[in-house]
Amino acid sequence: MEARTEISSLGEFGLIKRINQGIKNKLPDTIKGIGDDAAVIDLDTGYGLLTSDMLLEGVHFDLTFFPLKHLGYKAIAVNVSDIAAMNGIPHQVTVNLGLSNRFSVEAIDELYEGMKAACTDYNVDLVGGDTSSSLSGLLISVSVFGKVKKDLITYRNTAKPNDILCVTGDLGAAYLGLQLLEREKQVFLANPNMQPELEGNDYVIQRQLRPEARMDVVYELAEAGVLPTAMIDVSDGLASDLLHLCAQSGVGAIVFEDRLPIDDQTFLAATELQISPITAALNGGEDYELLFTVRQDAYELIKNNPKISVIGYVTDNKAEIALHTKGDNRVPITAQGWS
Amino acid sequence: MEARTEISSLGEFGLIKRINQGIKNKLPDTIKGIGDDAAVIDLDTGYGLLTSDMLLEGVHFDLTFFPLKHLGYKAIAVNVSDIAAMNGIPHQVTVNLGLSNRFSVEAIDELYEGMKAACTDYNVDLVGGDTSSSLSGLLISVSVFGKVKKDLITYRNTAKPNDILCVTGDLGAAYLGLQLLEREKQVFLANPNMQPELEGNDYVIQRQLRPEARMDVVYELAEAGVLPTAMIDVSDGLASDLLHLCAQSGVGAIVFEDRLPIDDQTFLAATELQISPITAALNGGEDYELLFTVRQDAYELIKNNPKISVIGYVTDNKAEIALHTKGDNRVPITAQGWS
Repeated sequence: MEARTEISSLGEFGLIKRINQGIKNKLPDTIKGIGDDAAVIDLDTGYGLLTSDMLLEGVHFDLTFFPLKHLGYKAIAVNVSDIAAMNGIPHQVTVNLGLSNRFSVEAIDELYEGMKAACTDYNVDLVGGDTSSSLSGLLISVSVFGKVKKDLITYRNTAKPNDILCVTGDLGAAYLGLQLLEREKQVFLANPNMQPELEGNDYVIQRQLRPEARMDVVYELAEAGVLPTAMIDVSDGLASDLLHLCAQSGVGAIVFEDRLPIDDQTFLAATELQISPITAALNGGEDYELLFTVRQDAYELIKNNPKISVIGYVTDNKAEIALHTKGDNRVPITAQGWS
Repeated sequence: MEARTEISSLGEFGLIKRINQGIKNKLPDTIKGIGDDAAVIDLDTGYGLLTSDMLLEGVHFDLTFFPLKHLGYKAIAVNVSDIAAMNGIPHQVTVNLGLSNRFSVEAIDELYEGMKAACTDYNVDLVGGDTSSSLSGLLISVSVFGKVKKDLITYRNTAKPNDILCVTGDLGAAYLGLQLLEREKQVFLANPNMQPELEGNDYVIQRQLRPEARMDVVYELAEAGVLPTAMIDVSDGLASDLLHLCAQSGVGAIVFEDRLPIDDQTFLAATELQISPITAALNGGEDYELLFTVRQDAYELIKNNPKISVIGYVTDNKAEIALHTKGDNRVPITAQGWS
């Protein structure tokens, strides 16, 4: 009998590691393959960036509460976020769509409305893709091509000890938004006459349903003359993405609990749901903020930008990636993936 | 009640047309958006090419007879074929994979073996992508980035009257291979003790399970100093792809039935399956050959290439795209899509 190893025995990160191990790049214009937010391609006069992500119904979104227009927007935004994380400018996107016959033409129009709105907001052109029937609901696979000047690209693996650790926006809201939507769905399923109670939670809901790529910060950093030493987007949660950045850079990091940017509504929703707001901020995921490092002398240039929080610093002790708590303890930061 | 229009009322081509109508490109470096085999991006020193395609289990492939290694190869090859159709060279690919827990780690290894073999054969680097769980079997979405010199690009919409119409390889085999595999599957389901009878059909089976992108012909045309006036890859069937080429170029075409390249095994399989070999060649699809036009003075340069068949010519009568039969009749060529 042939050997059968369950995917679950490796977990998400183990499986990805196993796949990536066997892949060797050979072309001279492949500057960076797997392992960063986007691949980097030499275009002579600059670098090209290529990234791709898939959203699957029932895995990444639940159409009982996810409006198609928002979903279309999100599908583009999360891919643009990967280009932002390379300090790049997105240019062209392709969209592959799988559709079951449950969807009407009007539903598809709505989905495209959202995608087109995102294309307008991020100034990208939708240039291609593929539409096919699907046996299993809605599938959206998006690829983005972007460009960046060679001296402006930011990788994950170039953070240096004593750099300042920064994050944009706030964390944990998208995760709590999802928990609230899931809860209201259960209430509705139990009693279809109940109306969802989401008042006062509009911000956390919006963070889940309509995340934005932080292209605004990419432009603002350039205007301020700040080039991050390393950057990654926060899609899996701050903890997981910080671990990637540190592992690839061969550095450690200390994050101050009291510096984590958490919105007031996130605190309220966390209390309502009996979830620690710190856990939501560290492990929630889907924030699509930018986590980046800068040299200490850049501090003066970013400290007045309300979109940027300094949350800690980089160390040369790669064995320690820790949260410095309000009670002055150091707690190791650990990641979670799907299994 | 809201309006609900079924997708089936538009059909595949109608739906794609509706989606594409609403899409306007704005960036100065978007040279070509939707409407050709790949999007074309200005890179200053040349053009970039971007294309993306999705293969879904149960829609595009049936794993009861499709070996995973071949499937991995095919997923790359069909995308490379779109780059070939622009007369371009493929460079980087990204692969998004959706996997249900039915798949073992060994199965995923096999799939990647096939993808890596294709990457080696076509000299492309696998540079990124996304792996996620799926509720519905296996999904593969591949994007390819390629490059082409600005004066060597070939579009679909530039065929001229009196050009010669050429096609590479032979047609109809992949479709008949699929019909044979489907038939043997039904036999096996009815009686699991029956062994599949595929002897003597190895070529048509191989054309279905392991198609090749015609990069060889792209290189040979360049060596011969032949620049096609227009080119498209034959993925939906010669009829459908010829109609695209003619409609976009604003021309007509005459195809000679007795010039259609059809392999001996294709004739045999067609007889066995009681399918017209001409219908298979015109409407079968999945050949991944190149359909292209050249100026008449290029005839001497290609006539001795055994991989290329001259099948007809381009006319200025865009109302007539017809098959000139062996009996000297003219039959309009029509296309088929999914509905």
